[in-house]
Amino acid sequence: MAEPSFARLFLLFFSFLLIFATYSWVFGPDSGFLFGTRVRKTLGSNRQVHVDHSLEKPHHPLDPLTVREINRVRTILSNHDPGFGSGSATIHSMALDEPEKSRVVQWKKGNKLLSRRAAVVAYWGGQTHEITVDLDSGRVVSDVINRTSGYPILTLNDVFAASQVPLKSLEFNRSIEARGVKFSDLACITPFAGWFGSEEEGRRVIRVQCFTLQGTTNYFMRPLEGLYVTVDLDKLEVIKIIDKGPIPIPKASGTEYRFGVQNKPVHMDRINPISMEQPDGPSFRVEDGHLVKWANWVFHVKADQRAGMIISQATVRDSETGEPRSVMYKGFPSELFVPYMDPEEGWYYKGYMDAGELGLGPTAMPLVPLNDCPRNSYYIDGVFASPDGKPIVQPNMICLFERYAGDISWRHSEILFANADIRESRPKVTLVARMATSVGNYDYIFDWEFQTDGLIRVTVAASGMLMVKGTPYDNVDDLGDREDDAGPLISENVIGVVHDHFITFHLDMDIDGPMNNSLVKVHLEKQRVPTGKSPRKSYLKVKKYIAKTEKDAQIKLSLYDPYEFHIVNPNRKSRVGNPAGYRIVPGGNAASLLDHDDPPQIRGAFTNNQIWVTPYNRSEQYAGGVLIYQSQGDDTLQVWSDRDRSIENKDIVLWYTLGFHHVPCQEDYPVMPTVAASFELKPANFFESNPILGSAPFFEKDLPVCRPFASS
Amino acid sequence: MAEPSFARLFLLFFSFLLIFATYSWVFGPDSGFLFGTRVRKTLGSNRQVHVDHSLEKPHHPLDPLTVREINRVRTILSNHDPGFGSGSATIHSMALDEPEKSRVVQWKKGNKLLSRRAAVVAYWGGQTHEITVDLDSGRVVSDVINRTSGYPILTLNDVFAASQVPLKSLEFNRSIEARGVKFSDLACITPFAGWFGSEEEGRRVIRVQCFTLQGTTNYFMRPLEGLYVTVDLDKLEVIKIIDKGPIPIPKASGTEYRFGVQNKPVHMDRINPISMEQPDGPSFRVEDGHLVKWANWVFHVKADQRAGMIISQATVRDSETGEPRSVMYKGFPSELFVPYMDPEEGWYYKGYMDAGELGLGPTAMPLVPLNDCPRNSYYIDGVFASPDGKPIVQPNMICLFERYAGDISWRHSEILFANADIRESRPKVTLVARMATSVGNYDYIFDWEFQTDGLIRVTVAASGMLMVKGTPYDNVDDLGDREDDAGPLISENVIGVVHDHFITFHLDMDIDGPMNNSLVKVHLEKQRVPTGKSPRKSYLKVKKYIAKTEKDAQIKLSLYDPYEFHIVNPNRKSRVGNPAGYRIVPGGNAASLLDHDDPPQIRGAFTNNQIWVTPYNRSEQYAGGVLIYQSQGDDTLQVWSDRDRSIENKDIVLWYTLGFHHVPCQEDYPVMPTVAASFELKPANFFESNPILGSAPFFEKDLPVCRPFASS
Repeated sequence: MAEPSFARLFLLFFSFLLIFATYSWVFGPDSGFLFGTRVRKTLGSNRQVHVDHSLEKPHHPLDPLTVREINRVRTILSNHDPGFGSGSATIHSMALDEPEKSRVVQWKKGNKLLSRRAAVVAYWGGQTHEITVDLDSGRVVSDVINRTSGYPILTLNDVFAASQVPLKSLEFNRSIEARGVKFSDLACITPFAGWFGSEEEGRRVIRVQCFTLQGTTNYFMRPLEGLYVTVDLDKLEVIKIIDKGPIPIPKASGTEYRFGVQNKPVHMDRINPISMEQPDGPSFRVEDGHLVKWANWVFHVKADQRAGMIISQATVRDSETGEPRSVMYKGFPSELFVPYMDPEEGWYYKGYMDAGELGLGPTAMPLVPLNDCPRNSYYIDGVFASPDGKPIVQPNMICLFERYAGDISWRHSEILFANADIRESRPKVTLVARMATSVGNYDYIFDWEFQTDGLIRVTVAASGMLMVKGTPYDNVDDLGDREDDAGPLISENVIGVVHDHFITFHLDMDIDGPMNNSLVKVHLEKQRVPTGKSPRKSYLKVKKYIAKTEKDAQIKLSLYDPYEFHIVNPNRKSRVGNPAGYRIVPGGNAASLLDHDDPPQIRGAFTNNQIWVTPYNRSEQYAGGVLIYQSQGDDTLQVWSDRDRSIENKDIVLWYTLGFHHVPCQEDYPVMPTVAASFELKPANFFESNPILGSAPFFEKDLPVCRPFASS
Repeated sequence: MAEPSFARLFLLFFSFLLIFATYSWVFGPDSGFLFGTRVRKTLGSNRQVHVDHSLEKPHHPLDPLTVREINRVRTILSNHDPGFGSGSATIHSMALDEPEKSRVVQWKKGNKLLSRRAAVVAYWGGQTHEITVDLDSGRVVSDVINRTSGYPILTLNDVFAASQVPLKSLEFNRSIEARGVKFSDLACITPFAGWFGSEEEGRRVIRVQCFTLQGTTNYFMRPLEGLYVTVDLDKLEVIKIIDKGPIPIPKASGTEYRFGVQNKPVHMDRINPISMEQPDGPSFRVEDGHLVKWANWVFHVKADQRAGMIISQATVRDSETGEPRSVMYKGFPSELFVPYMDPEEGWYYKGYMDAGELGLGPTAMPLVPLNDCPRNSYYIDGVFASPDGKPIVQPNMICLFERYAGDISWRHSEILFANADIRESRPKVTLVARMATSVGNYDYIFDWEFQTDGLIRVTVAASGMLMVKGTPYDNVDDLGDREDDAGPLISENVIGVVHDHFITFHLDMDIDGPMNNSLVKVHLEKQRVPTGKSPRKSYLKVKKYIAKTEKDAQIKLSLYDPYEFHIVNPNRKSRVGNPAGYRIVPGGNAASLLDHDDPPQIRGAFTNNQIWVTPYNRSEQYAGGVLIYQSQGDDTLQVWSDRDRSIENKDIVLWYTLGFHHVPCQEDYPVMPTVAASFELKPANFFESNPILGSAPFFEKDLPVCRPFASS
């Protein structure tokens, strides 16, 4: 057999979800981070400018840590504990420790910036440290060890190192050879371990699964099924290898997805170029890198290592007075939960929580201009800390663009007098903030879309590669009773394993300010009409219930027991006396059906309901807990909510979980067409009346004159 | 009091849903129909051309009746029965009687056109005639009288005449005067009667409700509440007047919606012009007026008096062979059901079924270019028959356009080797067929959107005006216990009455041909893992159930008992043995909760389930029955489905009901921002693999160069 040392020369290792590669891209050959090697389009022009993050200063209390601040935190930490100085400590996350909400809310541009703090999660000596660093004083102000179960978000070092561990094992190397796979074609990923009881307590554990790259870059479609490795992440040792013997490796042909590499004909007529054009440029401004001003909206947007993208302090102008009114203090995907539906060895533990286990930020590759975002887009970078505490830049991670999709804002056709026809229609133009993250096989596209009528639509679209399972069978007819055991056969020797996706959003709604918000459940109750009272026998009556405590707000949606859910400010009433409010409007959704005693569901208990409301608590940001890797479910939204605290007329947080069941089909192979779902935050008696009543239609004279590029 | 004859000089009467006005627009002063007075944009250019329908011939077996054919039907009918010759018969609908499906499916371009027949619904002497006219032989081939309960779709004559009837009544005129409303400001509409038992049998009944136009064109916001009139439509007599005494009329101020007439400031920054631009022109072709060819799709589209827009024979090219494959034979909104939730006098009967009671076609006003449809749109007219059998043209009733909304078809980011990043993303361009109908107060926008990945998305967006109720109260605090009795107070003296919208689609799916289709219910069943078998305790397992008979396919959706619903052709299997199929993917939805013995629900029984599958039956097109006006619910989808016919491996029809509960809010006043819901028809093992794997990204060189119009 090949020597491990020899094999290493040929092996290409892939960190789980390819963070390594992402980091490689932004790290230079000298391991420093690169500035100025990329360009960004400025607003309202096609000019490309360099972005130099090394000079950036924070301008707003919520602005993310800058390159200089990250460097300063590293310096402070190296004086705090020898672990940092010696390099034995690993920084798993570093982000702005946001100032107290009450102070942020009062802060105005021109005021002195609030004191800056960093929240660091570091790990050394088998212990997790949650450290708060005060940048103004240069001091560590707190250092809490092992606050809850679970470990920090993984680093690239973790997954890269883990993926190499199996090679230390003779058994593993023999297994690879027995499968006829060249080591140079080997690609290994590192699924997370989950938590399944005491056996795995007290050490960081990860799994390794391998694929072959032979004949394709889409190795995800070529699993070496039956070979499952468990690795100790701290000792970098194999804990267990399971080899169920070779299972046929699915074919390479038809799996490649890079444009120009495949040669399969496309059986469709050419689609002529089409573009969203704004000859006068976009209408939005981005002040100081993060504050977006558009139409009647102002909000703060930033890249985040864990959540990917955070929208803060969204305010909309009142339609009567023009005053800015608070809608939402903070909105972001708090956690993902992706349980796979196969209890067998090598699969049972798959229940990814990508935000807290890996982070949506470092996996958000640079967006592809013209294709990920339209031509009229503006891009924003992410600035994060690497495991050694150095700043790294994640370029073009967020795009902002105005969208016109041919939709209608409002319309009415009417003709009052003969020949005097009234046909009024207003086109819908919206503003989109987008981030796309490639958490390994899956790609998630997050859109926050702002409408001039006050509505915010949050859409999650999924694409990328299925996590497939190898099988000896190449035809459904041969499967017999085994049909669809873990999922449908979607190609020869390929089972698309059934799974769910849940994305739980933290929506800190502040309707007209942080205080005095309540959840009103607007119930549509079927009434029976007493005989003789009316020719009708039944109707729906609206009854309103104010949620007093958290348990009143543990909500499962039901088609046959419908409610609307309003966050209202009873202290801000409209002219006719309705409290100002916003509704959460669910779209298509799916619920987690796993038993509540099933370990993945214990950890993913934040999906036990679709809607929750909790009182604002600074520490309750992440629905599965801060330390979710191998967590035991002791710090979830379910645990917090079960305290049953008062939520009436308070600063409250709304949580919404958007879900998909995914039974794969052939069309998902070898790369999935996007599937999208969304929900809306919609004004409900927030404005006195339709706030876009006075908006103007499109006129031909305002639209651009275009010609094909080639003829220019 | 004013003499009725005098009053008539000043009165402006509005037919319910303003059909009269619509018809006026297309009728010339000589009451003939106008040709050549309007222009249409041709594909791929900005040139405007006249459309002369007088010369049109049918080219395809499903092409709607032409102007010449309609004239010929009128001639044939006038020889058939003196009722037509004398003018005592009224033509309530006239449409192509589509040839037998088996013959249409076999027909190919170049073949002789199949024989043409017209289906006419006429009414005279208190009897409803369903007449079939053979255009080739010039003969009436059948004339069926009073086939079911119910009356034909209303005509403009019906509603116009009915709206004048109350003026014959001294009591009514006194009531108007008592309210201080000038007759010249009076606007009356004609809500449908519903059916509430034997009292109203044997005669056509309609209601009349009035509003004031004083100070606004948006009379819908100014009801003369408390005055309700019931009219005999045949005798044109008042049956009953109920006057509960004057209730304050809501104010005019703030209700106007016409651009330029209102002077309320818009508190938002200017949005720069934005447009979807295709400098090389659209990529689709419309052959012979109705056959649309785009990318990998071909389908037939036509305007229809009842359904508004019908999509037929949608075929998509196979991604392996390029062969055209049948997906859907026919899709259209079969019926709407809009029950209001107020059992009181004057409101209890409101449960509109707009398609079959009034028709979505004549109420589909010409679309507003640039605003209802983007600049790159192509428009199609409707050609219908007027009540006297003459052809009328409904101009620019349908638009077709390619949509690029900045969305992504599929994507994956991956980096295999250091510095070799793979970031593949494909923009999503779709084709939309749109129709917007203004059924009185409400506007419904119907979109059929075709994607290159084989998905069809059907979206219904609602806008327009609420049906509001006057109330003495102008503040919620004064309402006390009465709060939200019929709905919320949304402006001073204005209650937005709670109601539902249901739109039931007829989806004649023909997966790879009309025969051999089955419904497969793909159940996600929670399994308990036997103790010790796995660290997991539960998972979801896919189990498939083939619906044998109709009762297996009476389906209520449930979040906690999830299914996928596939229409498959078990005789067409993929390479790995899966039957070719399409899924119906529900989006956000709402269910009818009315009791099954409530008269509106008996008539709207097609909303008792969200999904139904029936065997194809030529006569089962309209979910509430052909003659739905005052129908007794004896010819609904529920009645058909309860026969429990076999639906396995047959020609089958899928029915889907999309619903909204609507609790009005202030933002819906005085005109509602659009609210949209959709469902999808999505390939599931129809293609061997992702059919757009080989599609190309956008390149800068293909996009247009634009400049502001002003600078051109």
